[in-house]
Amino acid sequence: MMNQIHKTNAFENILVNKAQGSWFWDINENKYLDLTSGMWCCNLGHNHPEIIQAIKNQLDKIIHKNTRFLTPTTLEAAKSILNFFSNDYDKITLLNSGSEAMEFAIGFARKATKQLDILSLKDSYLGAYGLSKESSYTSQKASKLKIPYPICNSTQCKCLEEYDSLINHIIENYASKLACFVLEPIMVSGGIIKPCSNFISKLCKMLQEVGVLIIVDEITTGFGRAGKKFGYECFGIKPDIIVLGKSLGNGYPVSSIITYEYVESKISPNNMYYAQSHQLDPLGAAAALSVIDVFKNDRIIEKSQDKIKNFNNFFETLSHPCIQDIRSYGMIFGIQFQPYANFSTKELILNLKNNLLKEGIMIGISLGKDLIRLLPPLNISEKEIEFFKQKIVKILNSID
Amino acid sequence: MMNQIHKTNAFENILVNKAQGSWFWDINENKYLDLTSGMWCCNLGHNHPEIIQAIKNQLDKIIHKNTRFLTPTTLEAAKSILNFFSNDYDKITLLNSGSEAMEFAIGFARKATKQLDILSLKDSYLGAYGLSKESSYTSQKASKLKIPYPICNSTQCKCLEEYDSLINHIIENYASKLACFVLEPIMVSGGIIKPCSNFISKLCKMLQEVGVLIIVDEITTGFGRAGKKFGYECFGIKPDIIVLGKSLGNGYPVSSIITYEYVESKISPNNMYYAQSHQLDPLGAAAALSVIDVFKNDRIIEKSQDKIKNFNNFFETLSHPCIQDIRSYGMIFGIQFQPYANFSTKELILNLKNNLLKEGIMIGISLGKDLIRLLPPLNISEKEIEFFKQKIVKILNSID
Repeated sequence: MMNQIHKTNAFENILVNKAQGSWFWDINENKYLDLTSGMWCCNLGHNHPEIIQAIKNQLDKIIHKNTRFLTPTTLEAAKSILNFFSNDYDKITLLNSGSEAMEFAIGFARKATKQLDILSLKDSYLGAYGLSKESSYTSQKASKLKIPYPICNSTQCKCLEEYDSLINHIIENYASKLACFVLEPIMVSGGIIKPCSNFISKLCKMLQEVGVLIIVDEITTGFGRAGKKFGYECFGIKPDIIVLGKSLGNGYPVSSIITYEYVESKISPNNMYYAQSHQLDPLGAAAALSVIDVFKNDRIIEKSQDKIKNFNNFFETLSHPCIQDIRSYGMIFGIQFQPYANFSTKELILNLKNNLLKEGIMIGISLGKDLIRLLPPLNISEKEIEFFKQKIVKILNSID
Repeated sequence: MMNQIHKTNAFENILVNKAQGSWFWDINENKYLDLTSGMWCCNLGHNHPEIIQAIKNQLDKIIHKNTRFLTPTTLEAAKSILNFFSNDYDKITLLNSGSEAMEFAIGFARKATKQLDILSLKDSYLGAYGLSKESSYTSQKASKLKIPYPICNSTQCKCLEEYDSLINHIIENYASKLACFVLEPIMVSGGIIKPCSNFISKLCKMLQEVGVLIIVDEITTGFGRAGKKFGYECFGIKPDIIVLGKSLGNGYPVSSIITYEYVESKISPNNMYYAQSHQLDPLGAAAALSVIDVFKNDRIIEKSQDKIKNFNNFFETLSHPCIQDIRSYGMIFGIQFQPYANFSTKELILNLKNNLLKEGIMIGISLGKDLIRLLPPLNISEKEIEFFKQKIVKILNSID
């Protein structure tokens, strides 16, 4: 029956039937530690009991409605999401997917600025289709507006000495036609790369001064994933528009666009119309509302800091000739491989993935970027981390 | 708190809190007959108990997973959806929104044909963003590939005498660069218009002969909405790709793309990769599986035929100088207005909408097309239809 499914991925020969916390089970009751949080969505772990209950409660009332109507749950979720930010955002809508929310955000920025162009960093992944894909590294479309950037982790860096001229070049030559700069704070799909914060901070400041809107893609980096509440906090910037997805629903498909009244007020009301079947639907709102509650009440992000340290301490000790580099930002970890002995990088990564799966551990891989990627749930236990450490050391040691 | 929501619509000053069958309730316990089935999504009525229970059962197991994995529920839903068609479709995937599914379908057709152009009828609405929007009447973008078409309801028509030359013109001048013709069987958003079936049938046949793929948008017209199981059955055509959304989840956000192995086989496996956070997720699959079960077991489409007749008999008797035209296709009804007395068409429509809402009836409106639109649940009761009839007659009679 697997043959009936479009081959959009190299599907594993395992049927998954149950999930809870950091684990999922196949139909033969084998269990696997999920170090990808599904598709980087379940920052609170799979099937979090409070969120499941909140969805069930909403199922008993109303799940869907015409976009001409709002519901109390939708308004409550809107307020709770806005309040979750330290900045004073005051406008929001809810959609289903992150890509769709990014399309909405870019369209919104175009209407507000009456400009069309979109600036992005060349290794960003911003969406699966449309304008967000065109601005991503996954698009074939060449563009001078997908720009290079310096990489560093220091605030005392000298990156601007080299990159100041690029910023000036952008302001002088492109800025007048730019609607927005779309920033992915950590380029996770693009290789787990964090751009220099001095560069980003100055670029954003100068763009905002000439009226270009800053859109931040927090679909993956939001909700504690990058070690802070939101990834953009790394750069000391104040985005005009924020896009949320993935962890906003912790497994339920809901996304959001957050901005300011002063930005929306630049758009004529007739030009704001947008209708999607499930926009502002109460079922997604109930999921999002519950997610925010769990983050607040259980102090998830604060408590994740020790686990991040635990992972980082381990990765500092981990070495093998097949490992070229290890990068980490918050609860995002990437191990970059290089050819070793008779193995190509691809063989090393696939073998590691397959052997870990046999040992009950599921990791993410990016053959295009020579990476294995780990984005575990933020509430993974120390015991679960220990289980991973033992298994990966065992398998790395067996390579020869 | 309503002010915090992006003004994507002229929101009614009513907060909706509960829904069941053909009805929803506001926070003051006022009830409303929903003649729009939400956003044309709940062909089986709001919060159908079997579908709600199926979603709850799935919530207890697993709602989300990495796209590298499949689940038994996903495979079961895939098989059930494919079997719901009389044609022998054998390839499918599941996504969240109809627009996203249409983007996938067009991208798929482009890869399979190695051509880029997209043909559509000029009044089609195919999606909210991206390529599907560009091919829709809602896009500002002019294009010779958004073509005119004859309108008629007879199979004995002479439409081809006039339109044969257009078909030949398309085949000769555009077909070699076309990836696909995207057909919305009834253009519901575009004005409730059905193109001539002889024209569509001949156009599709000649396009398919030269390798152009036929994509049918069944997001609104599928699942009995157009009076048949699927809208394309009106034309005696065999689509290469079918896009489902809306009623596939009956209020839950799930969509699907259905096609043939022989089409997918034209695409190199490396080029098939597509990853969306909730692609093939088991929660949407559980909803879709349950929807198909209800359609089959309760013979919904067969039983809706008498209700369609009831509506049509009523509309044949309904007349008022402010009514210019009444159009109906299956369970899709449009009443077109014209200026009357001192009232503009817009005033007439808004007054009717507001007065019906006060009387406990929710209708759809399209000010751009001078229409009120009714897409009731297929399982609306005779008593509910009677309620609507009495109220609309009462309000129309009060206009002077």
